[in-house]
Amino acid sequence: MRITTIGFDADDTLWHNETIFRLTQDRFRALMADHAAPEALDAKLAEVEARNLALYGYGVKGFTLSMIETAMEFTGNEAPGRLVAEILAAGREMLTHPVEPLPGVEHALAELSDGYRLILVTKGDLLHQEQKLAASGLGDLFAAVEIVSEKDASTYERVFARYGTGAAQALMCGNSLRSDVIPALEAGCYAAHVPYVMTWAHELADPPKGHPRFAELASIADLPAWVREIS
Amino acid sequence: MRITTIGFDADDTLWHNETIFRLTQDRFRALMADHAAPEALDAKLAEVEARNLALYGYGVKGFTLSMIETAMEFTGNEAPGRLVAEILAAGREMLTHPVEPLPGVEHALAELSDGYRLILVTKGDLLHQEQKLAASGLGDLFAAVEIVSEKDASTYERVFARYGTGAAQALMCGNSLRSDVIPALEAGCYAAHVPYVMTWAHELADPPKGHPRFAELASIADLPAWVREIS
Repeated sequence: MRITTIGFDADDTLWHNETIFRLTQDRFRALMADHAAPEALDAKLAEVEARNLALYGYGVKGFTLSMIETAMEFTGNEAPGRLVAEILAAGREMLTHPVEPLPGVEHALAELSDGYRLILVTKGDLLHQEQKLAASGLGDLFAAVEIVSEKDASTYERVFARYGTGAAQALMCGNSLRSDVIPALEAGCYAAHVPYVMTWAHELADPPKGHPRFAELASIADLPAWVREIS
Repeated sequence: MRITTIGFDADDTLWHNETIFRLTQDRFRALMADHAAPEALDAKLAEVEARNLALYGYGVKGFTLSMIETAMEFTGNEAPGRLVAEILAAGREMLTHPVEPLPGVEHALAELSDGYRLILVTKGDLLHQEQKLAASGLGDLFAAVEIVSEKDASTYERVFARYGTGAAQALMCGNSLRSDVIPALEAGCYAAHVPYVMTWAHELADPPKGHPRFAELASIADLPAWVREIS
């Protein structure tokens, strides 16, 4: 058996995430309209997020704190309290946003779960990712859920050794070349890239074209066919 | 062999945590001195934290957001921006606070790691807990680290089944009766309570006096002797 275990990224692979961040960022632009031009605001927020990433990690709470910090920088630490309250509310709404699987996800997972061990491998806030998995209705299809602080080759080696039969017999599927595909290939896994409609700048990378264990798929609906082909 | 695996809570068991929260809360009182009496501020912050717990979970980022929200409530959403910037800074300092093992921890863990599998089982921000473990210098003593969103009996059953030989042959050691001791006993583990100098109100509970698998220890330094006694 060439593949026993399939890992899935969560955000923007199984359900929308970046869209919700972008919508919140639009709302942030509107809130800050009296204080900052949209482009300058976006650039500063990206800078603050990058600066805080090592400290806050991924997820909504850190993003909310970074929005507040950005608002402070644009107002010389004199942001109206009302504005801060609105940012807090926007963050809370992101955490309670309904979770719906992306098109084709339920069908593909149901088909693959009959024959392969499915593992969720995702960055972000532990509690929020667990809540999203529960809300998605997909939880029962996964044999294990691993929330990680970083996705590198050693992460995939560890996860697929622990929950599967090793990286060489595993496949990783996700929307990020940088986090899901390249380090998984480096660990010796197969890897499928299923692009989302948009990608966070932090996650951009070049596709490993021609790699024997790599496939670019237009939709997660195409994954079962590729898995059958290589198994 | 009656015990093969020993689980340790992290915050206030291996290193200071509540003290850092209390110091930050003192700083918050000082920052808010023009807007709120200390007792009223503490009560409101506790209320906001409790309200947000299901959404934010445990950890510094959620606490920082709750401080900002509390400041908003006391100022009718008109908190001076400077105040919010100070709260953000206080939160960041909590995340970079130096981590030093509590007295006796290194010695007890080193002794126990020769003969037992040691597992870290803790709530909180995944990234921050990993950072604290790395900074503590204790990382190499642990066979596994499990960051969980909640500590109930099923958590301990799952963790000790995955990383040990089951809950019945495991011992859980921590400073919280509510999170570390009572659910671990319920799962069938042994449990040692090592009180910290202070306890977050949320974690208070009555000790299970007379339980055959329970011990109250004055210090973690007493753990190796108890483990030898019951092994």
